[in-house]
This record gives sequence, C-alpha cells and structure tokens, in this order.
Amino acid sequence: MDIKLVTGKTLTISEGESLLHALKRHGIYLVSSCGGKGICGKCRVRLVEGNARIESSGTLQPSEIDAGIVLACQTFPEKDILIDIPEESKLVVGEKIALSRSGELIELLKSYNVEIQPIVKHITLNLPPPTIDNNISDLERLKRALLEEKDIIGIRFPNEFVSSISKILRDAEWNIALRYADGHDAISISPADMDMDKYGIAIDIGTTTVVVYLVNLKDGQLIDVGSTYNSQIRYGDDVITRIIYVTESKGLGELRDSIVSDINNLLVPIVESHNINREDIESAVIAGNTTMSHIFWGINPASIREEPYIPAVTFFPRWKAETAKIEINTKSLIYTVPCVASYVGGDIVAGVLASKMHRKSEVALFMDIGTNGEIVIGNNEWLVAAACSAGPCFEGSGIRHGMRATEGAIESIKIDPKTFEPVCKVIGDGEPLGVCGSGMIDAISEMFLTGIIDRKGKFVRSTRTGRIRDGTDGPEFLIYKKDGREIVLTEVDIENILRAKAAIYAAVSLLIKEVGFNLEAIERVYIAGGFGNYLDIDKAIILGMLPELPKNKFTILGNASITGAYLCLLSKDLRREAGVIASKMTYIELSVSRGFMDEYMSALFLPHTHLRLFPKVKQLILRSKNLGK
Amino acid sequence: MDIKLVTGKTLTISEGESLLHALKRHGIYLVSSCGGKGICGKCRVRLVEGNARIESSGTLQPSEIDAGIVLACQTFPEKDILIDIPEESKLVVGEKIALSRSGELIELLKSYNVEIQPIVKHITLNLPPPTIDNNISDLERLKRALLEEKDIIGIRFPNEFVSSISKILRDAEWNIALRYADGHDAISISPADMDMDKYGIAIDIGTTTVVVYLVNLKDGQLIDVGSTYNSQIRYGDDVITRIIYVTESKGLGELRDSIVSDINNLLVPIVESHNINREDIESAVIAGNTTMSHIFWGINPASIREEPYIPAVTFFPRWKAETAKIEINTKSLIYTVPCVASYVGGDIVAGVLASKMHRKSEVALFMDIGTNGEIVIGNNEWLVAAACSAGPCFEGSGIRHGMRATEGAIESIKIDPKTFEPVCKVIGDGEPLGVCGSGMIDAISEMFLTGIIDRKGKFVRSTRTGRIRDGTDGPEFLIYKKDGREIVLTEVDIENILRAKAAIYAAVSLLIKEVGFNLEAIERVYIAGGFGNYLDIDKAIILGMLPELPKNKFTILGNASITGAYLCLLSKDLRREAGVIASKMTYIELSVSRGFMDEYMSALFLPHTHLRLFPKVKQLILRSKNLGK
Repeated sequence: MDIKLVTGKTLTISEGESLLHALKRHGIYLVSSCGGKGICGKCRVRLVEGNARIESSGTLQPSEIDAGIVLACQTFPEKDILIDIPEESKLVVGEKIALSRSGELIELLKSYNVEIQPIVKHITLNLPPPTIDNNISDLERLKRALLEEKDIIGIRFPNEFVSSISKILRDAEWNIALRYADGHDAISISPADMDMDKYGIAIDIGTTTVVVYLVNLKDGQLIDVGSTYNSQIRYGDDVITRIIYVTESKGLGELRDSIVSDINNLLVPIVESHNINREDIESAVIAGNTTMSHIFWGINPASIREEPYIPAVTFFPRWKAETAKIEINTKSLIYTVPCVASYVGGDIVAGVLASKMHRKSEVALFMDIGTNGEIVIGNNEWLVAAACSAGPCFEGSGIRHGMRATEGAIESIKIDPKTFEPVCKVIGDGEPLGVCGSGMIDAISEMFLTGIIDRKGKFVRSTRTGRIRDGTDGPEFLIYKKDGREIVLTEVDIENILRAKAAIYAAVSLLIKEVGFNLEAIERVYIAGGFGNYLDIDKAIILGMLPELPKNKFTILGNASITGAYLCLLSKDLRREAGVIASKMTYIELSVSRGFMDEYMSALFLPHTHLRLFPKVKQLILRSKNLGK
Repeated sequence: MDIKLVTGKTLTISEGESLLHALKRHGIYLVSSCGGKGICGKCRVRLVEGNARIESSGTLQPSEIDAGIVLACQTFPEKDILIDIPEESKLVVGEKIALSRSGELIELLKSYNVEIQPIVKHITLNLPPPTIDNNISDLERLKRALLEEKDIIGIRFPNEFVSSISKILRDAEWNIALRYADGHDAISISPADMDMDKYGIAIDIGTTTVVVYLVNLKDGQLIDVGSTYNSQIRYGDDVITRIIYVTESKGLGELRDSIVSDINNLLVPIVESHNINREDIESAVIAGNTTMSHIFWGINPASIREEPYIPAVTFFPRWKAETAKIEINTKSLIYTVPCVASYVGGDIVAGVLASKMHRKSEVALFMDIGTNGEIVIGNNEWLVAAACSAGPCFEGSGIRHGMRATEGAIESIKIDPKTFEPVCKVIGDGEPLGVCGSGMIDAISEMFLTGIIDRKGKFVRSTRTGRIRDGTDGPEFLIYKKDGREIVLTEVDIENILRAKAAIYAAVSLLIKEVGFNLEAIERVYIAGGFGNYLDIDKAIILGMLPELPKNKFTILGNASITGAYLCLLSKDLRREAGVIASKMTYIELSVSRGFMDEYMSALFLPHTHLRLFPKVKQLILRSKNLGK
C-alpha cells in the first residue's frame, strides 16, 4: 500500500503497520513523546483521502476528529491514503537551522580566543611490545607509556575499559589511540590508525522546550538541531507544579524518563540521517534551570520549593551517559552547566556566558524569557540575579492557538488602524498554523494601539470590526481564517500574556532597585529566550514587558542557553568560565521582597499603571488614538 | 511433614518443597554450586528412612543410589523422613574455625605494628543549616565542611550519592556520618547518631577452593568462615584448561558467574546467621592467582597462556561490589591483592605478606602448594618467584576418595610395618569420609616405608596383606572399611600425587639454582596451602615433595592467601606493603628453562632418583626395610 503526502511524495506502508512507524521508516519523524502509545497526542496528521483503522483518538477534540485529524501511532491504513502532516507534528526542522547557524556559532567561539578542547581528549601512544623479559601487564604498560611519553598520571581505569585492552592492544599491534576525560577517566582505546570521528551534543532543557545540537568536535561545526516540547508538560506547566508532582505523587522517575526519552527521541533521526556512530558521540553538555537539571539526573528537587529554597546540588559532578541513560557512547561524560541557586540555573549561566556581559565593564541587564523569567544585572566585576515565574505562554503553551517559534508560526502581525484587518508574517512563509511568542506580543501591542483592546487587555466591543466575537472561552479576536482553519487570540489568552509580562517587568524593576541602580544606568540589555529571534523590541516595550530604553541598547540573543552549552561543549576554558560565572553570581530571592506584589500589580496594565515610565509609548498611544478615530 | 536428622533434630517441610529448600529454611546450608538444578551433585544426603519423590539423581553412581544417597535439591518428601547429612555436603563449618582463628589473626595484625585502616573511612560532620542568606546547595555545603573541618578535598560524588543527600541531611538535622573510600569515592551518608556497624570480607579464590572470611572492621574480629569448592572445576581442573574454556568456548561469562555465585552462596548463611545488614559490609579484599583474579573481574585471561605470557592487569584498580556482582553494599570497594605475573598472583603476594619473609634479612623459601605450586625465594631486599602446575589432587580433586581438609577427612595415617594395618586420624574425630592432602602424603610415605609400594609408587603385590586388591581403576589399597563404606587409595591416585610432588620439587630446586643458591643457604621454609595445617613435614620430605632440611627450619602457615587478604582488609599500610611486594618480586618463567623436565623426571621417584639429596630418608628406608622384613 502507499501513503501519499499532499506535498506529492509517495511512501510504502505494510498491512498492520502504523502510520507513525511507516513514516519513521522513510525518515519522517513525528513528535511522539509517549513512544507511540496514543497518549501524548502529538503525532497528529490529517487524513485527506482514504480509509484507515483507527485504534484510538486519544485526547483529540471532536472538532479535530471532524477535520480528519488522526494520531499517526494509532492509525493503520487499509488501502492507499493521502495525508497532510502539520509542521508542528514534525520532530525536526533542524538541519536548515543548523546550516544557517553553524558559521555564526564558529565565529562566536573564535571571538572568545580559546582553543577547542572538548571534555574527552584523544592521544595516540606507541607501546613497546612485551617479551619474556619485559613482561609487565598490559595495563601497567599503558600506564607507563602515559607517564613517560605524555606526562599523564592518575587516570582512572573502569572495569569495562580494562576488560577491553588486551585484545585491542594486540589487534592494534601496540599502536593505540586513547580517549580519556578531562577528569581523568579512561573512556576507550582503539587502533591508532583508525581516524576516529568525534561528536558531542549540547542540550538545552527548558521547562517547556528541549533543544539538542549535534556538533562536530573537531571544528565546532553544528551538524543538526532537534527541538521538541518537554513532555514533562503533561505533569505541570512550570517547575513548581512539577516539583509538587515529584513530592506528592512520587513522580521523579516519570519526569526523569520523560525528559530522557525526549532527548533520545530527538537524537534518533539526527544520528541516523547523518550516519553517525553513536559510539563516536563522546561528550555532552546540558544547560537547564536548577529543577530541570535535578530531574535530568534523578535528584529529588523537593527542597528547591521549601524555604530557604536550597537545591541539592549546583555544581554537578561529571557523570556518565549511562547514568543519564542518554543514548550516546555509554562511557562519555556529561557536563552540566553549573547552577547558581534554586531559581537561577545552568541555562542562565550558559546564557550569560554566551552574552559575554561577564567579560565587559559596561553594566548590562540580561533577561531570559521562558517559562521562568530570569534577570541578571552586572558586568565583569559583579553579577546579581533574580527570577520570576512567567508561565509557558510565550512558548505557545496555554494559549489557544499558541505554538513554538517553528515553521508555520505567525511571528509578527500588523493591524490596519482603520480596517482592523491583520497582516501576518509566518515563519517559513507558508500557511499559518498558530501564533508564537513574538506574534502574541505583536498582536497585543497592535490591538492596543488600534484600540481593539483597552489598557486592561479587555476587548473594546464598540470597535467597528467583525473580528471581535464571542467564542467558547469568551471574547476573542479572529486573526486568520482560511478553508475552515481559524486562528484566534482570546481575552483569556491576553490575560495570560499580561500576567507573564507583568511578572517579568516587576522582576526587572525590583532587581534594578535592589542593586541601587536606575534604568538609565543600564548600558545594554540582552534578551534571551526561544522566541527571541523574531521579537520586535518596540512592540515588547509597548506591551510593557521590556523597560523603555533606547532601541540600540537592546541585543537579541535568541536561545542563549543552547549557545552557552555549545560553547562549553567545545572549550575547557569556557567550562571554567561558566564555573566562575556561577560562583560569582549572587541570587536575590524576590518572592520574600514585599515590593514584588506592588510592582507586579502596577505592571498588569498596558504598558504599565505609571505611564511616566513609558514616555514614548505614552506619545504613541496619544497619537494612535487620534489616528484610530 | 517432618524431616528427622540422625543427630536427633526435627524440622518441618511442606508438601512440594525440596529437601534443599527446607533445610535452608532451617539454617542448614548445603553445598549447591548449580543453585539447585540437580547438576553439580554436591547437595548429597542419605535417606535413612521414609519415602520421597526423587526427580533426578544427576551424576550419582549406582552404588551411591543403592546406599540411599539422594540429591537434596531433587528430593521432595511425601511423608516423614529420616536423613543423614554427610559433612562434605554442609556448606559451612566456619564458625568454629572462626572462633579458634580470630585471636591468632588479631595478634598477627598487631605484630605488624600498623593501625586498623579499612578501605572505607567513616567521619562525622556537623554542617551549618542553610538559611536564605547562606543558601549554597547541599553538596557544596558538604564539600565546604569536608575542606574546612577535615581538610579533605577531591572526593568524587557518584550520582546515587548526590541523589540521596538532601533527604538524609535534613533527616539528620545536618549532623551526618560520611563513608568514603581511600581512593576518594563517597560511599554513603547517614545520620551521625546512628552507630554504624562496619564489616568487610576477605576472599581467597583458589583454583579449586574458595574461602570467605567475614571480619568486623572495628576490631579485626573474625566472625565467620565459609569455604567451598570453586565450581569452575566443572570447566577444567587447572587454570590452563579454564583459559582454554574461555578462549575456545567463549566461556568467560560462565566462569565468572560460577565464582561469583560461589562467593555469594557462601555469604548468604554467614550474613543471615549473624544478623548482619549487607549494607554494612562496606569493603572486600580478594586474593587469587592471576587467572582467577582476571576471571573474577570479567577480564579475558587469554594472553596469560600465550607466549610471552602477559596478563591484562596485575595492579587492579579498586572497582565496586556492584561491578563484581558480590552481594554486599553495592558501592563498597573491592581491593584485589596485586599480582606479579601470569603465573604468580595475588594469592602469593598475600601469602608472602602473611609470612613476613619480605621484612626479614634471612633468606627464606615460600612454597604455596595448591592446584598450582608457587615458590618464592628471597628476603627484605629481593624476591624471586616461579610457578608450576601441581594439579588439584592435594585439595581432594581427581583422587578417588579425595576431599578437602574439612571435618571427616583423614588427615594422618600410620601403617603398622608388620601387620600393614592402618590407623587413621580424622578431622573432627568422627567417622572418616575421605582423605585430604596431608592424609595422602602420610599414606604414601607410610606405604613406601613399609614396603607396600616401591620407589616408583607401584604396589608390591607380594606384601603379606589382604588390603592390596584389584579395583575398577587397577590395584588399590584399602585404607578404611565399615558398614559398607570403603576408603581406598589407588595406584592411579598415587601416580597423580607423585606427579604433583615432582612438579613442586623440580620447581624448588630449579629456582634455587637460578638465583645461584644452594639448599643449605635457605634459612627458613614457609609452607602455605589449604592442607598445610595438618601437614606432617617429615612425611612430606619422605615423599620427596619438600627438600630435606632440618625440621626446625619449616614453618607451616596454612592458607596464607586468606591470611594476607585479611591483613589487607584491615590495614592501609599493609595494602601498600602488598603493592611493594608485588612490584619487587621478579618472576622467572621455568617452562622455558631446559632444566625443568630433567628435574621433574628425577623427582618422580620416592623420594627422588638421587638419594644423596635425601640422606636421612635414605637411612630411614634402609632401617624400615629391615624392620619390614
């Protein structure tokens, strides 16, 4: 039987084979956090023509089922079918990103003026073959050569390593290449004349999104990128609900398994499509917030949530891939970017490293806007950090038609102030599938400037447009409609977004106060976060998420956490530098500060209760209201 | 239903329960290398009265079956039965030995003038509890206290350790006891007020016999002893046949599993009967020959057998119990007494350590007589070693009625030169069950002196006794007969023993020559080996196994390998000393020496071809021949 794709491609499928399985066989990988059990509801495809046996529809809505949506893992075609795979169901859109980012990353690495020194080192040794008179054991012979030829002492030899040496030494005729780790663990030996490839992976474990970079450790080339939702989402939207799940439902194992299988699922297509031997992936770096890092390593994060908010560990030892159950060389070492405190993790340390603010004398503000908002202020002498909970809305979660900033996402919107008709720009320039964080910010600021919503984010029902209507969740604005597909932004969505931006703004202003500064003293603002590449700074200021500062002071970093992880994967000096950043950074717990709630309440308005803080936005409002009339 | 023992005890048994299982439930452990599969044939008991369903008789001989012998694992009683358990079927005769040896071992340890310092150390720490202002992570807090309070730095923290700390630190209210290893691995933490027991095990892995000592690490007390046959025997009698099994039948895993389950089987009854928590057994030492040490750790010993005879490893890293699959605290470390070369292993290094010859200026000869014979000559300045293959006969294997030196073994024999009637001394003073090594040596030298056998070890058929008769293997001498039970020594047995003694004598004399000495220069001879405690030096000289030297030069050490392992378990200094012994010892490969075969052939006679080497034995022969007439 055949599967036809609306794009024109035709693939074979066997009787009794699931659609998910058949697609995978042909190199098309769908998101499948539950591993094909019909639970996660992520492997959606649209059945355009033909019949199939459908074992379960999982949590699909009746409207979706009516529209022909099926779960690929539960669908067994009975004759030829025609399907359409939505972009959000595809696991990897990475190679294109990788190709476009690779040069930029290599340039960045060069700009630090450090050597490429991965976690695992390679050396070659030429041992004297044994004789009756020179009859020391194989391991002693190796140790002696390490000491005498390379001045290396104190390497630890695991049992499996020693079990392998006798045969390899003889097969290699005593000319061998040794892989060993910075921290002095022997990883493997092989004949010296085999030119070993070496790869590493950098992983950003966000509360909502997981990103994996596959990197060639010889030259720093970014080979491929994979990203997906963190499937822990089903247990809670933010770190607090996940910690509660761990403590009250004993769910540490489940959460750990979720993130580990997300990562392994991302690795499969990347590794297969580039024909890479998993054994040659010999190191990994993870950057995640403190809770994510704990869960990844199976360490109970309970005390993070209990006053005085102490994590079990901030500087993680280098443990092996087999401990993490990440499917690369089992003996390879995983470096965890060190965390600062319970609510400022390795993702922020990695981000600061990628921003270089810690190397410069100018006072800078670093903002990482994800499910948590973390703010760092400082320079090459001092660094102070704080955190707030923003929620996952900017990553598309909890918003009716929200999605991550991947192909098909509306990344910017312009609304005509007279006709109220929106014009959308879509990532990849195809048909829109949803709205990503930057699109939401655009939409709200445009709706505000055109008077569609008021300063509280409520719809002005007198606006002369048919696009404001009552939906199942209350009032909503119709952004897009074509062939029965609609994209809306609801008043509930807007409330969510306002709460998120208020938390971020409150944290920034309180932190600046706490360190005795004012806004004018900030010489630079770095914006990090998954949506960051598409972010319109002006619109974010109108929203009141970012403080009103001259636009040229802002630098958009994108996902700075994965960039920092990439840097740590390649350079020993930068791993050390990450350690210095984490040690140096002082964490301030804002939740115990009385001022926080006041700041937050004031920031819930558009752009803010106190318009004097946003003088230019104020002018803009005045002008656009005139225009709107 | 009931099982009655001939000793008077009564135990319950359920329908469908095997005899082996029921006995175990009541604390009576039988040898069961195959784990109750009816294969190893070791769990023999005699059914005196009553009926039972017998599933298999395994390799039992028809005569044994006629005598009521059954395999306990294959026997399911159907009504009350009366049974007799032969001593050789009982797994442990250890506690008595332990009680009698404990004081002697503690005295020996004291005589070295070293502190008790096991592999795992215990320290207590009182950490400052965290506050909002003092909010470093739990692990950093622990590391800081280690450095500031105890000056300890560089400990490695495994993932499981870090996973456990947060809860324990809080439960313990920040007063904790830390177990960590010499080599800087954190093992576990617990509340400081729990007085932790600490135990260790010393293991001697012989080619034929395995011995386990359970030791209290606080005071060095020997709590219990277990010993059994090394069940690798089923794959071959000596190290060479076992290496062949590994290389030709890919049997490394099987051999490894055999020895590991032997050790674990010995541990079960010991640990249970003393109510010891396995978690509190926190270190182990193994001493074995080089092949046994390799197999124990799953390292292929193939190159040991190939010229130039190079082992994979002689100084084994300290790996964990979980790697070895020994059922003690999984994180505890196992120290392997270092080996010298392919045919001189950790058992010899341990033995030399126990002999103290390496601390004295007198030139001594150390002989370990087991399945391999190893000879060391030297003093506190130099040590030279050689090895030969003796075969397992002195440990009871390959001899018709041979057995280990445990209860029921004939340990000495006196034969009346006129009547040729033997008088036997039995270990434990009960009925004899077989002959152990020392009994064989006695028997042959007595038979020789009384003219029952000639200098070639052949029976003199003209001897006026009915005890020489023709058996299934040819001529044999009836040592014991009662109630249908017979114990004989056959001409084939004698040949085996002569070959073993000849190999040992040849190795001794060749080694002495190689180092440029002669017999007279030897100031002391240490005899080690499982049978050693019962060995009659005079008889061993008459046999021609030991060189003829004044009796007061001989010191019998017994199983010196397990004694050395015990010493290493308790003292860091003695572990270091073992390393020095292994480094210092020079190994000479006798098999490449042309003289060996000549020496061996000459030594096949009783006591030797050249009677001038045994002047006193020569006189004795002349005198006893006169007496015999």
